[in-house]
Amino acid sequence: MKQKVSGNMLIAQSGGPSPVINQSLVGAIIEAKKHKEIKNIYGALHGIKGILGEDFIDLKKESVATLKAVANTPSSALGSVRKKPSPEDCARIFEVLKKYEIRYFFYIGGNDSAETVHIISEEAKKSSFELRCFHIAKTIDNDLRENDHTPGFGSAAKFVTLALMGDNLDNRALPGVKIDVIMGRHAGFLTAASALARVYPDDGPHLIYLPERPFSMEQFVADVKKVNDKYGRCVIAVSEGISDKDGTAIAAKFSKEVDSHGNVQLSGTGALGDLLAAEIKAKTDIKRVRADTFGYLQRCYPSVISTNDAREAAFVGSTAVKQALKLQSGSVAIRRKPGKKYQVYFEAVPLSSVAKETKHMPDEFINSEGNDVTKAFIDYAKPIVGELPVIGRFAGKKIAKK
Amino acid sequence: MKQKVSGNMLIAQSGGPSPVINQSLVGAIIEAKKHKEIKNIYGALHGIKGILGEDFIDLKKESVATLKAVANTPSSALGSVRKKPSPEDCARIFEVLKKYEIRYFFYIGGNDSAETVHIISEEAKKSSFELRCFHIAKTIDNDLRENDHTPGFGSAAKFVTLALMGDNLDNRALPGVKIDVIMGRHAGFLTAASALARVYPDDGPHLIYLPERPFSMEQFVADVKKVNDKYGRCVIAVSEGISDKDGTAIAAKFSKEVDSHGNVQLSGTGALGDLLAAEIKAKTDIKRVRADTFGYLQRCYPSVISTNDAREAAFVGSTAVKQALKLQSGSVAIRRKPGKKYQVYFEAVPLSSVAKETKHMPDEFINSEGNDVTKAFIDYAKPIVGELPVIGRFAGKKIAKK
Repeated sequence: MKQKVSGNMLIAQSGGPSPVINQSLVGAIIEAKKHKEIKNIYGALHGIKGILGEDFIDLKKESVATLKAVANTPSSALGSVRKKPSPEDCARIFEVLKKYEIRYFFYIGGNDSAETVHIISEEAKKSSFELRCFHIAKTIDNDLRENDHTPGFGSAAKFVTLALMGDNLDNRALPGVKIDVIMGRHAGFLTAASALARVYPDDGPHLIYLPERPFSMEQFVADVKKVNDKYGRCVIAVSEGISDKDGTAIAAKFSKEVDSHGNVQLSGTGALGDLLAAEIKAKTDIKRVRADTFGYLQRCYPSVISTNDAREAAFVGSTAVKQALKLQSGSVAIRRKPGKKYQVYFEAVPLSSVAKETKHMPDEFINSEGNDVTKAFIDYAKPIVGELPVIGRFAGKKIAKK
Repeated sequence: MKQKVSGNMLIAQSGGPSPVINQSLVGAIIEAKKHKEIKNIYGALHGIKGILGEDFIDLKKESVATLKAVANTPSSALGSVRKKPSPEDCARIFEVLKKYEIRYFFYIGGNDSAETVHIISEEAKKSSFELRCFHIAKTIDNDLRENDHTPGFGSAAKFVTLALMGDNLDNRALPGVKIDVIMGRHAGFLTAASALARVYPDDGPHLIYLPERPFSMEQFVADVKKVNDKYGRCVIAVSEGISDKDGTAIAAKFSKEVDSHGNVQLSGTGALGDLLAAEIKAKTDIKRVRADTFGYLQRCYPSVISTNDAREAAFVGSTAVKQALKLQSGSVAIRRKPGKKYQVYFEAVPLSSVAKETKHMPDEFINSEGNDVTKAFIDYAKPIVGELPVIGRFAGKKIAKK
């Protein structure tokens, strides 16, 4: 165990928001208040942008009622940023951290954010600056390595599941082809969660396309025709990140916008859905074809929260603070115990093991045709998403025709 | 009062589904079971399509548990249709109704469905066929005349309000321009409900565009610039049905699909949002511009239900049955009592007074600039939408810069 370090704490949020990202933030604040080594608790506004600009607020001054309300409110309460620090930024960050006597630094975010923490942690070591650096995992994409699943995924997956439940019922009432485009650049977990919407044997989504398998337009059209012939309708869940066999994102052909991490904009546009709908209209005689792109709704929708997700997100935050009192750096991963009963535990892992590279859907979660998930995925995702509403359906005893 | 009529009952659902359309259906079934004049209770599948095809199910055979579960499930449990009956269809419908000894006909739907009931009712009178015809109001658009508000609106409006609450928080975390396209062909009520999302003075939606006012692209760009200059961000709620000063829908320029009532397809495509986003990108130097089209999610989302809406929808269904025992035809309208306390009552109105023509947002609900709603609208909509989640925000005491 490292020797004790005394000083102020700085916490910030980065990347795309989630419905439970403030659970982690408030979990860390409440834990930090218990330890005398941690003096002041500062929140930097809009991630490292707020550190560079010394834009801090005093989180020790927040009332218990406010902390509770913020924890239950979606989207980064401290503001967020999509910015990868340059070497000059890192130098400037240390200057600021020293000036404010920061010895505990927590950054809540996905793999890009873990990379940022990793860079700062390595720079701190090089400069022999005693700084405890912890990444607090958050991503609705569920694509962080080392984690059984990530805080934020369960709630976003619940939003997607409910949306598909509703959309399947809508499509059953007014049949046709319905395409739902769901977030997920490289990992299909969120799109896969749509499978939890199935209650009755003919329920959609009938087809699920993930970034983990090459997308073929010909196969897609053939799949849709087949389902439509069987059920007279077809509901499709498709990841925004689906790519052709050469690895080119289908949506990328329609967008040139790139963020500072080099990611092409996929959300906040209906282009992919419209393209897929146009293809079905052109290549089949199905008349009613619609596409919806769930966009930003799925990552910040209030009141559609997975109970397990909210609790775990808070625990990842508090565990990060506990671990930072013992270790120089790391990220807190959620692990699942083997066995039928859903049980998780929390463990510190090296930053390098979660940074940069993303996790993908394992092969055993995807069917051989590459157009659906397996029972193994359902078993995996069900407890993470939690309780779902009862979907009623008439027994529907037919009246004999006269 | 008309003399008593004894025979079977037929009920069906039509038009776009709603989150509480089955509350009305089950409300009518439960009420019908109480009256000995009503013998069998048949449900036609997919509206008048099911009547023409004699595709009926026995609703008296459904268990109380199933009725309860179906009532709480969104989207037309009997299936729906978008079909305006031709004179030949009407002749065929009477033939079927006579054959099955139907004396009570209920059709759940919007103004197009009311028109269908009206046509059938008039034909029945002409043919001296004793048929009680009632329309049971349903539309998330809230555009039925005679009604203070319609069943389905409150729940869809709650979905929109929550979506905007989340989206405003998302936009506050990662600032930019965000455009949300909301359902509403000719009436802006659903888009207007986005205003209920505002909790703090700087909360979005900052601009609201409705079909009731001519949409000018120049004014739109100027409005967005102004808000963005003030807050460094801008959230916009816009109706899918916004039209230019000549009455041409902005979205219609991008879609040629028309249903059998002559309506152009506006939902199920991201074209309008993408067009508005492209305009802001082209005419301003704002870099981050995103658009989401809520599409079908807003009309069938499970578990986001307004309590008042669910209760009233059931009551409209049961009242229609009670009224049909007394009157030849009509539609049950929701009226609001004057005064501060929210109180409604239910009244039979002639079919012709709700059929065909739609209701629009009254002038006192729209601000003079035509880019927001008024306090009168908020007061009107709040009790219809009902309870909303608490949105927490840090007091955010700034740390003095060193």
